[in-house]
Formats: sequence, structure tokens, C-alpha cells
Amino acid sequence: MEIELRLRVEELHARYAHALDSDELERWPEFFTPNGRYRITTAENEARGLPLPVLYAEGQAMLRDRIASLRHANIYEPQRYRHLVSAVLVEPQGEGTVKSIANFLVVRVMENGESLLFASGRYVDRIALPQMRYEERVVICDSRRFDTLLAIPL
Amino acid sequence: MEIELRLRVEELHARYAHALDSDELERWPEFFTPNGRYRITTAENEARGLPLPVLYAEGQAMLRDRIASLRHANIYEPQRYRHLVSAVLVEPQGEGTVKSIANFLVVRVMENGESLLFASGRYVDRIALPQMRYEERVVICDSRRFDTLLAIPL
Amino acid sequence: MEIELRLRVEELHARYAHALDSDELERWPEFFTPNGRYRITTAENEARGLPLPVLYAEGQAMLRDRIASLRHANIYEPQRYRHLVSAVLVEPQGEGTVKSIANFLVVRVMENGESLLFASGRYVDRIALPQMRYEERVVICDSRRFDTLLAIPL
Repeated sequence: MEIELRLRVEELHARYAHALDSDELERWPEFFTPNGRYRITTAENEARGLPLPVLYAEGQAMLRDRIASLRHANIYEPQRYRHLVSAVLVEPQGEGTVKSIANFLVVRVMENGESLLFASGRYVDRIALPQMRYEERVVICDSRRFDTLLAIPL
Repeated sequence: MEIELRLRVEELHARYAHALDSDELERWPEFFTPNGRYRITTAENEARGLPLPVLYAEGQAMLRDRIASLRHANIYEPQRYRHLVSAVLVEPQGEGTVKSIANFLVVRVMENGESLLFASGRYVDRIALPQMRYEERVVICDSRRFDTLLAIPL
Repeated sequence: MEIELRLRVEELHARYAHALDSDELERWPEFFTPNGRYRITTAENEARGLPLPVLYAEGQAMLRDRIASLRHANIYEPQRYRHLVSAVLVEPQGEGTVKSIANFLVVRVMENGESLLFASGRYVDRIALPQMRYEERVVICDSRRFDTLLAIPL
């Protein structure tokens, strides 16, 4: 049913946001299907059709690796994210898939208490039904000035 | 039905936001009824009952003109917007109209990659049913410091 | 019914946000049950299990007092807030209570027109049914750098 599907998609986006914002990064891969793809790119690259993503991971194993590296890296300045997700559009694709587009804004809070607008952009997702997991989550950032090397997933 | 109406209003706001944020400005007038009104004002002007809007357009022709001017103007610094819409309230007015109030925040992303909090405020809308188009969209900006002369619609 | 409950929770959060953002502070206590609790704390304090809140009020009388003090205090710089609420999760607890978690971001707009990202964090709420009022609203701010002494409630 249309209404229920829409609310379940919004709930998935919400649970994803809270997992990252609560530093439960080890749960991040569980939001994807076993072969799920995660990609961060920029609006500029997308517009030019450049396939080169800022970050790419495919499959839960690779997603787990990403989190493991992050945990073991020297992150000098501990940080926290806060996700706002808005303007969610939902488009059933038939055959057990739903497409979703949403706007996001991420605030980064540093250890010293400073907050800044870290990233904004669009999520373009394909979600597997009935599991409600991301087959693909593409994070299209508005800005090309962007350091995600040691960053928490968006 | 109340629930469906609420979700359709949220979807309208979402489609509007994505059209602007994707630079599909030519689609902007289609979100309004043929005689639809669009007005940008400030909270200060509203509180004082000053009728003078920052910007006013009535009817799809005038809305199209606005976009045409924008496209032909020398905008030295290309820019992109990202809309967050939140706290949506929906109030059926009977007789084929629904009122909606929502908070918004717009991030502006400049060509050099810099992002800034461009505007925040409230949408106060009257929406025509069953077409789901704005009869009136009033954009009440929190700040009076505001340059929208060459700006993308909010 | 699940869907309706979810939308009613979202509507409560929306009405709360608009009351504060429209400076209708005297209506703030009405969003709580007669014995309702309101608490502002920081993520750091929560993580360390420190019970000391930045601000605590219990019962509508105390909430009203808080607003009265605010109105009578010398606030040198008038200000306005804008709330964005997102990623709402709803969890029925049976027995006339529902739990809700949501992300928020508050923009502060000063008299001179300047806007800044004032606070971000998480609302953790217990809501009484069927009245749809907060039994408890805990505001967990991301940043510990925080002056709320003379501030509008979050």
C-alpha cells in the first residue's frame, strides 16, 4: 500500500541517520542488502557524467572494512554528525524495489563544541522490498570541496 | 482522507524543493495554479503589517518571466540551493482548498564549493485540490538582511 | 492505528516547533502533561551518565515560570528561532504512551539579521495518549558549548 510504503521508506532513512549520529557505525552495513552499493559523489561529477566517485563500497564485507579502517585510524579530532533528511520522494519500481530521493544536511560537531554545516545534498536510493534495505545508496554532495577520507559515512 | 491529504501536501513541497535544487527552474511555474500568487516577505514586515513584499508574482506568465530574467541575467557566481522542509502542518479549508504551514531552511552552495546558510523561515500556503498546486505560496524569511534580486526562488 | 499514530506524533512536534518559532512562548507549557518534564542536556553528559542537566523543569507551573522569567529578563538582543525536525522514529509503549526520537536543528536569527546554526541534537520524548502531550521531553544537544541561560526553549 502506497501510504505505508512511503512511511516505511521514511523510517528507514530515519533509522540510518540515528545509527550514524549515535556512533553505532558497526550497524551501518546492516542497512544494505548483502551486495548493496554505497557511493559518495559530487553534483559536479554527476552533471559531467564522471564515473569517479569520492568513495565507493560494494557488498557488506567492504562496508564493514570501511568502518573497521575508520575505527583504527588516527582521528585526531573526535567528531559527531547530525543528519537532517527532508523532501523525501518515493517511487515504487515494481518487482520488489522502490526508488527514493531525499535532501540531506549534515552538521559536524567537533570535540571543542564547534558546530558547522558539513555537507548538503541528495540521497538517491534503490531499496529492496520487503527487507527495506538499500540495494544502492548514492550520496550526491552539493559541494566539491570535501574531505571524506577519514569521515563517518554520510 | 486526512492521512492521504497530509502526505500529498508533503509530497508537493518535496517535488517543489527538488525542482529548484536540481536547477529545473522552468518547471517552477507549474507548481502554481494559473492565477497562483508567489510572495517573499520578511517576518519583520509581516509583524508590522507592511504589505510591501521583497518579491511578488501573480499568475504563471509572471512566474515564467521571473525565471526568464533570471536565466538571462549576468549571475557572476553560479550557485545551487538545497532546501530542507520540516514541521509541516496541514489544515483542510473545505471547498477544494488546503492550508499548509512549514518551516524551511535553504543552504546556498557557491561555485568555489563554499556552503552557507542562506535563508530560513516559514512557508504559508494555500493549495488547490485536487490539482495539488499552490494558489498562494508566501515565503516569510526570518532575516531582513536579504538579497534576492538575482536569486533563485525560495 | 500505527500510521495515524506516527503522523500525529509528527504533527505534535510540528506544532511545538511553530509555537516557539512564532514567539508564542506562553503556549509552550500546554504541550506537556500537568506533571510533564522538560530537560536540556548535552550528548557528553548523557554518555557519561551525568544526571546534571543544563536545564530542568517539571510540571506546567514550573514551565510557566520559566517563560515568565524569560519575558521579564533583560534580553539585550531580541532573537528568533527556527526549528527543523527530522528523522522521527515512533515506538508505541502500550498503556497510553508512545516513545519518539527525532533529530533537530535550530537556527537563531538575531535582530541585525544575522543567522547562525544555534543548536543541533536529538529529542527523546515520551508522549501521553490520547492527549498527545509530552510526559517527558529530553533535549540532547550535540555541543557542550552552550548558553541557554536566557534562551528560548528548544
